[in-house]
Amino acid sequence: MRTVTGFAAYAPSEPLRPIEFTRRDLRADDVAVRVTHVGVCHSDLHAVDGLPAGAPPLVPGHEFTGEVTAVGADVTRFAVGNAVAVGNIVDSCGVCDNCLAHREPYCRQFPATTYGGRDLRDGSPTQGAYSTEYVVRDAFVYALPAGLDPAAVAPLMCAGVTTWSPLSRAGVGAGTQIGVVGLGGLGHLAVKFAVALGARVTVFTTSAAKADDARALGAHDVVLSTDAEAVAAVAGRLDFVLDTASGAHDLGPYLGALRLDGTLCVLGLPESYTVSPMSLLGRTLTVSGSGGTAETQAMLDFCGEHGLTADVEVLPFGEVNTAFQRLARNDVRYRFVLAL
Amino acid sequence: MRTVTGFAAYAPSEPLRPIEFTRRDLRADDVAVRVTHVGVCHSDLHAVDGLPAGAPPLVPGHEFTGEVTAVGADVTRFAVGNAVAVGNIVDSCGVCDNCLAHREPYCRQFPATTYGGRDLRDGSPTQGAYSTEYVVRDAFVYALPAGLDPAAVAPLMCAGVTTWSPLSRAGVGAGTQIGVVGLGGLGHLAVKFAVALGARVTVFTTSAAKADDARALGAHDVVLSTDAEAVAAVAGRLDFVLDTASGAHDLGPYLGALRLDGTLCVLGLPESYTVSPMSLLGRTLTVSGSGGTAETQAMLDFCGEHGLTADVEVLPFGEVNTAFQRLARNDVRYRFVLAL
Repeated sequence: MRTVTGFAAYAPSEPLRPIEFTRRDLRADDVAVRVTHVGVCHSDLHAVDGLPAGAPPLVPGHEFTGEVTAVGADVTRFAVGNAVAVGNIVDSCGVCDNCLAHREPYCRQFPATTYGGRDLRDGSPTQGAYSTEYVVRDAFVYALPAGLDPAAVAPLMCAGVTTWSPLSRAGVGAGTQIGVVGLGGLGHLAVKFAVALGARVTVFTTSAAKADDARALGAHDVVLSTDAEAVAAVAGRLDFVLDTASGAHDLGPYLGALRLDGTLCVLGLPESYTVSPMSLLGRTLTVSGSGGTAETQAMLDFCGEHGLTADVEVLPFGEVNTAFQRLARNDVRYRFVLAL
Repeated sequence: MRTVTGFAAYAPSEPLRPIEFTRRDLRADDVAVRVTHVGVCHSDLHAVDGLPAGAPPLVPGHEFTGEVTAVGADVTRFAVGNAVAVGNIVDSCGVCDNCLAHREPYCRQFPATTYGGRDLRDGSPTQGAYSTEYVVRDAFVYALPAGLDPAAVAPLMCAGVTTWSPLSRAGVGAGTQIGVVGLGGLGHLAVKFAVALGARVTVFTTSAAKADDARALGAHDVVLSTDAEAVAAVAGRLDFVLDTASGAHDLGPYLGALRLDGTLCVLGLPESYTVSPMSLLGRTLTVSGSGGTAETQAMLDFCGEHGLTADVEVLPFGEVNTAFQRLARNDVRYRFVLAL
């Protein structure tokens, strides 16, 4: 077993505390990665806030970069010293139709998530990358694109692919009219991707203060969601709207912004949505999860070509609780990354 | 002006009564049609039940067949004596993007509906085809396919194209796994179309008594919506589900029946839908209106080739109120048609 240290949640909503725990000895298809940078995702906050009473300590972290420290006997794609990146899934059944289509987040057996899940072979709980080393099946490890800052690549592995997947599946390209709702960790990457893909991008935000930020990221238009006149002015115009806002909110204005056959893709998962059938007439509503291995690789290739990464604020690993507190009040542009 | 007779609603939920009224003199692009058969649609019931107090009499009827009795000076596609069919839209702006794409039900100026709407040129109220003659712009008139019973074609013009449009837009064909929810006027045509297109068809019904009917229409599988085990057995299997059930109902089981990237297309328009985001994860929800002129013509061509029509019960025109009463309790397989 490999001994590692990290930070864990011991009780709901309490600060994380140091932990020492073990990783498995390498299987033939495993890669050990020394974590150098790990992104802080909203879902990490939710996992800690929602930790069941009496549960064992939970180590968050599911978007990270680092360096290979050891490889299993059958691993050919990576060698010790390689710079790599890992996202929010570390295994899947590999034989269902969705896995065969490289859509592993939709694995019919449910994939092994990077933390808070179960290893598919021995059933042991998975612990995340707020830790010095991670051991992961090679099929879920990606080469770090040359020339990109590993700190700014870490958030691509969850926030990035989660926005890349629906945009690329929708065929976003030159001339497409795209809307992006919300300008946080996910939204800022959606804007960057859509702009780099050649789309015309309208950002919907509830905060007038973010208008300049949106334009700085390349957005062409900004609509204040609370300005009914501005919302009405884009009605029936957009091909695709990616809604990155978390929590329950009214989808009506974003459905209304779509042209005939347009799609609203929502990334948040509140308890339920209430939609008016008339607002959906001739339009489409979908909810997207994360991207699979093929999309993750395609996104990394695209980012390498375009020099595209997340806008991050890097904090030392020991300041994880500062990152949590500031993220809880949305005080970050646009993603915290912890440097180990 | 042309004097016609028919049946009108004079007050909400009261029996229809005879009416005499006038149609406009023919414009250069108008066609006058002697109505021989008109379908009785659920929306006719709703229009009568929802007639505002004090409103002028309303003549329902928006799916009909008949014979051309006169044509305007510029009409070249039709001549007196032609057998024709007309649906639920009789004009649209013709210049918006949706009209140019022949998706006239989504005309940005809102189309002129066959009754209960407004003529786009003079603003006069439109009155429907529960009447001896109808005057309609030639672009919204279709030749009756050779060899088909005009009584059984009438329901194709609303119920037919409303189910044809989403099925054909979804690319339903050989090997597609299709679900159809509900086996009424719309549902029975959806089954017939999907079977004729080569799909494998699963019918969801709340009534065990309809299982044999569904199979007689060509359905391969029947799932009783109230049988949780049977519903679970189809989870994650279907490519496309067409939900023809009216009124508010739980969409969860039908979303759950979809494979990844599958689509649930709903035709009913209750006040609102409440959907769980998890049930929509990797799936799509859409609401479809009626089809446009290009789709209507394609459907009629398909029906002509396949000898496909609605299953109808024909009643004499004077029995319109019997048809309404029986339709209100779903006592029809599967569509009433009034013969004039």
